[in-house]
Amino acid sequence: MIFVTRKMHFNAAHRVYQPNWSDEQNQACFGKCANANWHGHNYDLFVTVKGEINPETGFVVDLNWMKKIIEEHIIEELDHKNLNLDVPFMKDKMASTEVLAVEIFNILKPLLLGDTYALHGIKLVETERNFVEYFGN
Amino acid sequence: MIFVTRKMHFNAAHRVYQPNWSDEQNQACFGKCANANWHGHNYDLFVTVKGEINPETGFVVDLNWMKKIIEEHIIEELDHKNLNLDVPFMKDKMASTEVLAVEIFNILKPLLLGDTYALHGIKLVETERNFVEYFGN
Amino acid sequence: MIFVTRKMHFNAAHRVYQPNWSDEQNQACFGKCANANWHGHNYDLFVTVKGEINPETGFVVDLNWMKKIIEEHIIEELDHKNLNLDVPFMKDKMASTEVLAVEIFNILKPLLLGDTYALHGIKLVETERNFVEYFGN
Amino acid sequence: MIFVTRKMHFNAAHRVYQPNWSDEQNQACFGKCANANWHGHNYDLFVTVKGEINPETGFVVDLNWMKKIIEEHIIEELDHKNLNLDVPFMKDKMASTEVLAVEIFNILKPLLLGDTYALHGIKLVETERNFVEYFGN
Amino acid sequence: MIFVTRKMHFNAAHRVYQPNWSDEQNQACFGKCANANWHGHNYDLFVTVKGEINPETGFVVDLNWMKKIIEEHIIEELDHKNLNLDVPFMKDKMASTEVLAVEIFNILKPLLLGDTYALHGIKLVETERNFVEYFGN
Amino acid sequence: MIFVTRKMHFNAAHRVYQPNWSDEQNQACFGKCANANWHGHNYDLFVTVKGEINPETGFVVDLNWMKKIIEEHIIEELDHKNLNLDVPFMKDKMASTEVLAVEIFNILKPLLLGDTYALHGIKLVETERNFVEYFGN
Repeated sequence: MIFVTRKMHFNAAHRVYQPNWSDEQNQACFGKCANANWHGHNYDLFVTVKGEINPETGFVVDLNWMKKIIEEHIIEELDHKNLNLDVPFMKDKMASTEVLAVEIFNILKPLLLGDTYALHGIKLVETERNFVEYFGN
Repeated sequence: MIFVTRKMHFNAAHRVYQPNWSDEQNQACFGKCANANWHGHNYDLFVTVKGEINPETGFVVDLNWMKKIIEEHIIEELDHKNLNLDVPFMKDKMASTEVLAVEIFNILKPLLLGDTYALHGIKLVETERNFVEYFGN
Repeated sequence: MIFVTRKMHFNAAHRVYQPNWSDEQNQACFGKCANANWHGHNYDLFVTVKGEINPETGFVVDLNWMKKIIEEHIIEELDHKNLNLDVPFMKDKMASTEVLAVEIFNILKPLLLGDTYALHGIKLVETERNFVEYFGN
Repeated sequence: MIFVTRKMHFNAAHRVYQPNWSDEQNQACFGKCANANWHGHNYDLFVTVKGEINPETGFVVDLNWMKKIIEEHIIEELDHKNLNLDVPFMKDKMASTEVLAVEIFNILKPLLLGDTYALHGIKLVETERNFVEYFGN
Repeated sequence: MIFVTRKMHFNAAHRVYQPNWSDEQNQACFGKCANANWHGHNYDLFVTVKGEINPETGFVVDLNWMKKIIEEHIIEELDHKNLNLDVPFMKDKMASTEVLAVEIFNILKPLLLGDTYALHGIKLVETERNFVEYFGN
Repeated sequence: MIFVTRKMHFNAAHRVYQPNWSDEQNQACFGKCANANWHGHNYDLFVTVKGEINPETGFVVDLNWMKKIIEEHIIEELDHKNLNLDVPFMKDKMASTEVLAVEIFNILKPLLLGDTYALHGIKLVETERNFVEYFGN
């Protein structure tokens, strides 16, 4: 079993606020992350697949194929978008890094599954100072 | 003459579009950067002062003082904000990295000016792949 | 279960030497790390908490709260200090990255413990070329 | 149990192609990675040892000793070499990052083994965008 | 006048040796960089244009257009290639970072020239530890 | 004229304080940088030489030779040392990044001087957030 990781990135706007709360509650809990007119980040996404090495190719998976899967299903949905307004799979969800990471993992899991490999986990980096890792439940 | 640089950062949302143009023109020129619901970046800002070393302190300027000036006049205005909607000094201007860099320089120039030092230039990094440098005109 | 990491940093001086040994033994074992007048590093500290996502906030923990806990209990004790001389919790201990990492983990463990989250581990980076990870025993 | 990592690096040329296949098959599977006249990378190698802290030294292992072991057995074999042509332990193997990582791990495993420590795993970074991790089987 | 930079990258093999010299002379001067079977690098290329901000777009140049120019004329020629064997504009030239930087600059200069902007310089990074900058003659 | 840069590094302890001042004055001016028992940094040093490309080698200078010069005259003096106590060329000087940069430049200038090249400047990085550049007077 060996682990192979591909780094991707996207730029997005978001706002972290709880619509069931008052503005004061949102401000107290989320501070400037709740600002009404959005802010944004350069997100780095690391996708890790675990599997066996194919003896003919030397690869666990074809990283170009994996890149295209991630681009089509994740990056095109998120890049230069508003996570709260533009992304179907984030609709009615909190636009936190944690929630976004779980959603990305759940979308990729069935797409990156083969006889000799499977999705292991993802790491989603919001800023130089904070990131989230999820490996499924 | 020696050059001293302090790195700062802020996260902001923006949209690059020309309000005098049609949606089609904006899309043709700016592509996904013109998306209606904003996107965003982790911006890194490098501020460089040039000057003489004060023989008593060994410093050109007190970097903690310089940090506070930049925080008060630039970072508090930009961090977790929408560059198009929330920032007085960007009002009615294109929210490009170039325009933002010039505005930041012009604000900081009189604030970082002393008998033995002056603002030399700024570098504004929008993503790992593109940045702008401005040294005044 | 999801993992959330906050990066912190501090600058410190230290010296790695065994007071029960002769200078020759220290020199043979630790080389220039044992130099009498200290040297120092820019340390990066990554603190990782694991837990469940709070459905109301979208967060595992409030990262600003976690940052303040780490600043108060770790960074204020270590930043711009001498690890051998100034830090109560390192007294009479070897000032190695390994020992420091264990001490930091043990201090943070009860502070970063809630019903739905717990400290998972820390990563302490001494230089670009070496780091230590500790997840408790 | 604590984990200690040392980063090393080497620059090498390689080509990923399957000699049992036609040029067309190689092109279809490996694309430009199969180009006849080689290409190359700056590889970063992270070697992680797990073990107990020696109470006399504060170290799990002497990182200078570990660095010399890795230099002698791995870096001198790979640095400024052609992975397909020059490296005895890669002979008749696919020169992929996955295969190289497994070979490096298997060479280091018996060399980084003591009463209180053992090789935990390695991370081999081919480019900013892809890396492989192996922890043995 | 403002400066805008786009970062690109390519992976290539090369060998630094002087064909008019003996193997011994090459070994003495270039060391392992002269190894017969090539080695390689992940090159980062920073291309900087200087110019005036277009008041309608807020841009000095369209960075997507500039990226395509660099990809077509430089990256496609160099990426996953052998600098000594595969690159027409490096034929019969030393495959050093310095020579490559001058050639790249000379190719890009007429391509990145407009009424309000011009190529300022390039930075070519061979490894984390060495890079070359060229601004024309 | 082309510019070639070599990155070096060293780890050192220091303290920024003015011995002619009272403790209160030092604390007011330098804050925790004046702490009595020292702190330290991982310093990165970039040394840039400008010159003409030697047509026989393709190099401005032999970077291995330049590395040895810098190691012998700068790194061995500074690495794992106390800038205030251990470094002859810093004796009775303020141990600031600015002063250190000027001293390093002045030492290297006559050593990196040839018929076709000369020292252009140095960049001394104290932390991720601040650095100094000096190009002579």
